[in-house]
Amino acid sequence: MIRVLLVHDVCLVRSVLAEWLRRVSDLTVFDAEWRGASGSARSLRPDVCAADLERVDSHEMPPLGDLCGRGTADPRLLVLATARRPGLLRRAFDAGALGYVDKEGSPERLVSAIRRVAAGERFVDDSLGFGFLRAARMPLTSRELSVLSLAAEGASVAEIAGSLHLSNGTVRNYMAAITRKTGARNRVDAIRISQGEGWV
Amino acid sequence: MIRVLLVHDVCLVRSVLAEWLRRVSDLTVFDAEWRGASGSARSLRPDVCAADLERVDSHEMPPLGDLCGRGTADPRLLVLATARRPGLLRRAFDAGALGYVDKEGSPERLVSAIRRVAAGERFVDDSLGFGFLRAARMPLTSRELSVLSLAAEGASVAEIAGSLHLSNGTVRNYMAAITRKTGARNRVDAIRISQGEGWV
Repeated sequence: MIRVLLVHDVCLVRSVLAEWLRRVSDLTVFDAEWRGASGSARSLRPDVCAADLERVDSHEMPPLGDLCGRGTADPRLLVLATARRPGLLRRAFDAGALGYVDKEGSPERLVSAIRRVAAGERFVDDSLGFGFLRAARMPLTSRELSVLSLAAEGASVAEIAGSLHLSNGTVRNYMAAITRKTGARNRVDAIRISQGEGWV
Repeated sequence: MIRVLLVHDVCLVRSVLAEWLRRVSDLTVFDAEWRGASGSARSLRPDVCAADLERVDSHEMPPLGDLCGRGTADPRLLVLATARRPGLLRRAFDAGALGYVDKEGSPERLVSAIRRVAAGERFVDDSLGFGFLRAARMPLTSRELSVLSLAAEGASVAEIAGSLHLSNGTVRNYMAAITRKTGARNRVDAIRISQGEGWV
């Protein structure tokens, strides 16, 4: 039996998906929302964490690192993703996810992916390839991402400068570089584009 | 038999949810993504359209009006929603939705709701009450919402002025009023707050 922890923030969807997976004979399925996911992973010790990358009403990145580890006894991470948000794919990759299932595909693919990841093998849906390609071309530096994340939360130039120990002028320069690199018309547009891609 | 058209943008979720609903003996279930939903509603002539209010990667409002009508032969609209985005609840109400199911609830509630709405009765999940309360307190005028929607798409003050046949100064006044009324720190923050609530 493969022990699976399904992580999804929308209760109705999580219930139906967990019930659907429970009908697969070689799976034992638990489920959690993101808020309680780390704790559930520690106490239930699943073989595979199958997690939807999108949090409800939050652009914050889910705590992916808590759901997997590099040790042989640690859970393996499989993520439900779309090619439209390459930033999330990249962050799942950085966190060590072994499986990548396209939410635009069929649920049967999820079962195949769970089995492969449980066996320690990589699983990547072909249709996510384009997303990975775009993820590799992320134009912003990590410092620019920090500036942009604070701006997206509504922080002013002075507040960003204070948080990151920079001068106001430097923050303005970063914002100008971010706007140029994302091909945006202005700061608001740069935030919109970056959130759409899943960079911040 | 009740003919149901399930509208949801995420293929994997839509498939599993449709399959789950098909096990209910008095339902005949079809499914569509938002892009093809109007056409499906016209050709399939369902009794009930059960639609998730959130579109994938788009803050645009789904075409709710196309999924229901005031006539007795028209489909009845039921929406899957959360109390966290009162703006979407309000727009579903304006479009004439008869049922409101909380996605934070159980899938069994959805079946009850479909039956009630098919019978022409209103169905509102108790847990959405707080969302309706907040929806009733939406602080922005429709003109302010137009300005904010364009700003959220990255339009500059001059572009907004051009689109809405206003002067730049008037647009700036609107933006200042929007920022004040939403309790935001600045324009970016006002957009963030309003998108979170589902106003734009």
